[in-house]
Amino acid sequence: MASPPVTLDEMRSLLAALPGPDLEAGSAALLHDRTLTKPAGSLGRLEAIAQWMATWQGKYPPQLRHPRVAIFAASHGVAARGVSAFPPEVTGQMVQNFISGGAAINQLCEIVDADLRVYEMAIEEPTEDFSVAPAMTEEDCARAMAYGMMAVESGIDILALGEMGIGNTTSAAALCLALFGGAASDWVGPGTGVTGDRLAQKTAIIDESVALHRTAMTDPFEVLRHVGGLELAAIAGAILAARQGRVPVLLDGFTCTAAAAVLYAADRRALDHCIVAHRSAEPGHTRLLDAIGQTPLFDFGMRLGEASGAALAIGIVKAALACHTGMASFESAGVSGKTA
Amino acid sequence: MASPPVTLDEMRSLLAALPGPDLEAGSAALLHDRTLTKPAGSLGRLEAIAQWMATWQGKYPPQLRHPRVAIFAASHGVAARGVSAFPPEVTGQMVQNFISGGAAINQLCEIVDADLRVYEMAIEEPTEDFSVAPAMTEEDCARAMAYGMMAVESGIDILALGEMGIGNTTSAAALCLALFGGAASDWVGPGTGVTGDRLAQKTAIIDESVALHRTAMTDPFEVLRHVGGLELAAIAGAILAARQGRVPVLLDGFTCTAAAAVLYAADRRALDHCIVAHRSAEPGHTRLLDAIGQTPLFDFGMRLGEASGAALAIGIVKAALACHTGMASFESAGVSGKTA
Repeated sequence: MASPPVTLDEMRSLLAALPGPDLEAGSAALLHDRTLTKPAGSLGRLEAIAQWMATWQGKYPPQLRHPRVAIFAASHGVAARGVSAFPPEVTGQMVQNFISGGAAINQLCEIVDADLRVYEMAIEEPTEDFSVAPAMTEEDCARAMAYGMMAVESGIDILALGEMGIGNTTSAAALCLALFGGAASDWVGPGTGVTGDRLAQKTAIIDESVALHRTAMTDPFEVLRHVGGLELAAIAGAILAARQGRVPVLLDGFTCTAAAAVLYAADRRALDHCIVAHRSAEPGHTRLLDAIGQTPLFDFGMRLGEASGAALAIGIVKAALACHTGMASFESAGVSGKTA
Repeated sequence: MASPPVTLDEMRSLLAALPGPDLEAGSAALLHDRTLTKPAGSLGRLEAIAQWMATWQGKYPPQLRHPRVAIFAASHGVAARGVSAFPPEVTGQMVQNFISGGAAINQLCEIVDADLRVYEMAIEEPTEDFSVAPAMTEEDCARAMAYGMMAVESGIDILALGEMGIGNTTSAAALCLALFGGAASDWVGPGTGVTGDRLAQKTAIIDESVALHRTAMTDPFEVLRHVGGLELAAIAGAILAARQGRVPVLLDGFTCTAAAAVLYAADRRALDHCIVAHRSAEPGHTRLLDAIGQTPLFDFGMRLGEASGAALAIGIVKAALACHTGMASFESAGVSGKTA
């Protein structure tokens, strides 16, 4: 992309100018669907997915030859406060695992034949501990968003987004609390596995952090800057760029959806080109899905992050388009229509 | 298979002698899972699927190189009573569509690289109209079960089952009513799309048919014979043969699950090697899933039959095994373990 914007105001302007749905392409998908050799509606959500792909790719027929999975990885200052069951160095170790092919996401990308990109964001330089200071400066936040936009390149048919960052369910819960209200206990969960006293401490840190920054968080972008993280800002940027580039998006679990929710809080239409792949086992995800009006594709009780659920969903989108574009019509197959 | 059994008593004996789970293989899967580079449990149902595959393939590691999708197609005498929104000749027309590659299932099999077999069961000779007589003789029912057993051949790693038969949601609802009680209205639904008066008529036919045969339906196999159909008997047979042959099974929607439920009603352990792929939009399916204690993998609001949901689920099982067998361990990847 030519000279990406580097202020949050430029990001706000981008959001205000996002393209809308291509209703012509979407209608073409619906009309074609009604000719196919099956009772109308009998493929359920697969039919809706084909229409959604056409609507947001802005073309008919929709295609899915080049799926991309993008994982953004970054370090969180708040992790030093013991909010995760794993030590902060695991973020960098897992990035190495992604690169050497040993993580879950590597196997899942192979199954759906997706291009995996891992975006390492200054893992040796964590954000500020947001329990004492804003996580990012305005420039760092805007640059992280702009960095995320680079995941959208010409030729990509769908973008599955995910993250890696020890401590980032704390950040995600703080984002949700600041954006949608309630109490920290409504949004907090075990993440990689904290329980008992450490979970109580995680909850208290989220409550205190949001209270600390409350007056400074004047809009969703300021929420992102104060209690978000570099990888979460990058995800928000990637979602904006995908909308501009006519690339439908699959969102992963709680943390990824929380990053996306920043855009939703700023503009109710911002995630119309996105589907949340799955309902995470992280308890705040269900409340978050309700808050942003999304129905996930499936619920396998997953809570791994690293785009694992979003990558799995690529296979479902492929199946939806294969049916849509490959099936015979009643006429061509000589199948009798409905009598009743 | 050498001389398949041809009486229902032989089928009852087979059911009584089914092999149990291989707990050693299942435990090996669980132990290996706990070494993988992810928080324990974070792949949720994918972990359970890998363990289930090992348990019922009876070997470790489990494998999924040769998935098979089997569709059984047959004609129902009761279809003459107008219980379907489509005319009976659609069964044969759809079989031709399967053969020429134009149906949804053809596209779905291609996506998951599954071998598709279509078993046409005397489509020109429908069963008896069970609203006036038993659908099948004992011999026809047993032979249909034995025919279904042929879908299980050496080298198949998983079997996804489905059906095609205009009128067969009427048969499925009658099976459920006879096996699990209630009223026909608890189990009936639109099938391919009947509504209003025709749905009321379908409901009445189911109630009357089950009342007609009540005293003669002395066990679940007799239920199958009286109000089932050839393709439903074949599915039951295929499930038995798969258990014997150590082939895990994916069940499709309402009709397929109803056929499987015959075995469950006869022996609570009979479906332990089966997973119901999806929750169908056909309303009776949810009640049936509760009755047999199954939690489907996903709910896409599908109601097509022809193994479409079961075929989609093959991709999920593949993903589960790819993660299980392909991921690095904490030790091999040099990733730090949990601290809390």
